Amino acid sequence: MKITIADIARMANVSKATVSRVINNKPEGVSKETRENILRIIKESGFQPSMVARGLVTKKTKSIGLIITDIANSFYPLLVRGVEDYANKYGYSLFLCNSDNNPEKEKGYINAFIEKSVDGVILSSSMNETSFHYNILKSKNIPLVVLDRCVEGDQYDASVFFDNTKGAYIAANYLVNRGHKKIVFISGPKSLIISRHRLDGYCMALEEKNIEIDEDIIVEGDFQFDSGYNRIIELLDKGKEFTAIFACNDLMAIGAIMALKSRNIEVPKQVEIIGFDNVDISRYIEPQLSTVGQPAYEMGVEGAKQLIKLIEGKKISNKDIILKPNLVLRETTI
Amino acid sequence: MKITIADIARMANVSKATVSRVINNKPEGVSKETRENILRIIKESGFQPSMVARGLVTKKTKSIGLIITDIANSFYPLLVRGVEDYANKYGYSLFLCNSDNNPEKEKGYINAFIEKSVDGVILSSSMNETSFHYNILKSKNIPLVVLDRCVEGDQYDASVFFDNTKGAYIAANYLVNRGHKKIVFISGPKSLIISRHRLDGYCMALEEKNIEIDEDIIVEGDFQFDSGYNRIIELLDKGKEFTAIFACNDLMAIGAIMALKSRNIEVPKQVEIIGFDNVDISRYIEPQLSTVGQPAYEMGVEGAKQLIKLIEGKKISNKDIILKPNLVLRETTI
Repeated sequence: MKITIADIARMANVSKATVSRVINNKPEGVSKETRENILRIIKESGFQPSMVARGLVTKKTKSIGLIITDIANSFYPLLVRGVEDYANKYGYSLFLCNSDNNPEKEKGYINAFIEKSVDGVILSSSMNETSFHYNILKSKNIPLVVLDRCVEGDQYDASVFFDNTKGAYIAANYLVNRGHKKIVFISGPKSLIISRHRLDGYCMALEEKNIEIDEDIIVEGDFQFDSGYNRIIELLDKGKEFTAIFACNDLMAIGAIMALKSRNIEVPKQVEIIGFDNVDISRYIEPQLSTVGQPAYEMGVEGAKQLIKLIEGKKISNKDIILKPNLVLRETTI
Repeated sequence: MKITIADIARMANVSKATVSRVINNKPEGVSKETRENILRIIKESGFQPSMVARGLVTKKTKSIGLIITDIANSFYPLLVRGVEDYANKYGYSLFLCNSDNNPEKEKGYINAFIEKSVDGVILSSSMNETSFHYNILKSKNIPLVVLDRCVEGDQYDASVFFDNTKGAYIAANYLVNRGHKKIVFISGPKSLIISRHRLDGYCMALEEKNIEIDEDIIVEGDFQFDSGYNRIIELLDKGKEFTAIFACNDLMAIGAIMALKSRNIEVPKQVEIIGFDNVDISRYIEPQLSTVGQPAYEMGVEGAKQLIKLIEGKKISNKDIILKPNLVLRETTI
């Protein structure tokens, strides 16, 4: 038979509220004697307070909500592992949600998190600002950490971003220093802030060397393989000339390689290519992809670290953490 | 100010228990008049019962626990998406946990799920039998669905497995029919039941054509790239002869391709290769990998479908669902 708080209260001849106070370690108004008697009865009866029951009193459920755009996108599994590993170490469980870049779905998850009384939320947002999320979570005292996808303003409690401008800059700068003047830029969706930051980095590197920005070879993809492939085929069909490509993620860079191969253009001899993210696949293709390393696992760990500090009322020394890029040179560059 | 059940009870001049009964649609012992009065007050006050508070009465939290071995293993993201998509459609949220093939970690997650009063559990187990999980969950009336990793016995409420024997059989049979007699078999960890099933399928195909099973070219990997690479290098160094390879996952198959390339052995001209899983990477490498298709997304969907039926007390027409393999022929076979 399952033992309840009511049973313990009856056995100890106290109210259920008193039992709850003892279970949740809030000793005000409970005598030491009563407290010890209740603890003894709990121990002897084998009673296990459920997290749900405890959550009503402590207001803590030891659960965290995480929203990403799509776990099947190869950047996210490592980030999610980073969050889960750190959260698990501190006894938190993780609700995983995929927004598919759909703001309405994202808002629905936030509401579900509130219904489930999560202790905190980590968000890689499909929106460029997070006031909806922040306001509703703040009203419930639930901290919000944003990561990966940059947002405008500061409608969050902490953030972990990657230095996207710098990442694009070091890639473009490498290509510029190799003597390239016609460098295709395959952007992510232009509506995203990270896409603008990466374009900024690309432009900075070119402008530093007084290379004219050619709008005709700045094209927009959607982070999928096919868009990288198609944009390059289109440029070739239009007769546009270029000797290097910088793609804003690895999948599009791989699409670009395949497009060049289909036209018998040699990589890296005729066209050098750099991608972005350093996902696993980039090591397995041929030639192996040179790319900008985004520390996805570390980003997940740092995000969880920030959030758990906030949940536990500890001070965070740095509200905004910026992770630094590194250039991983393999075989698509010389 | 946050409105609580106590406030509603005070305003309606009834007990908190009565308010709970009305909120949770359990009308016994509450007059129609009282019920309508309470609902009116709830509506006017803007009171929102939290899922945690509601969970105490309905015993439902609308959350599902999912344990896989590692989200960073490229087979799992699609499976997790399948579970999450289906669960989300029915209003369930998903706790994601990575066991790293560690039985103790797996048990810890099961205990955490019970503390969090999840409504059901989906498990890809690192253990060959699930009596620990089943007994403890059964005692709390929490249904258990196992998927992906086969288990011995029937210590679960429903299962979704892939026909691993058949999958290995069709791959080996294809190679046998192409005239190969020396086919390397790179197994997963031999301790896993799926590894044994795949070996069974391989042996069946060879025995059907009276081809002798050569234990020397049956080797064990760990599902990682490096093990595929190393096993093939070892066989080459020992001077073992073979003309085809069947690897129990795509990562090991890709490792095998790289090993052959490093020795200037041409794929598929000199050695044909078939992998297992059909993960994304298999389309991006060169030559593109022929492989056995495992419908990971569908497995996730079917698992969630089984579990939600069980949670909602509906009949499942088929306790054990077996998903069928298909052979995806690309460029590593002729």
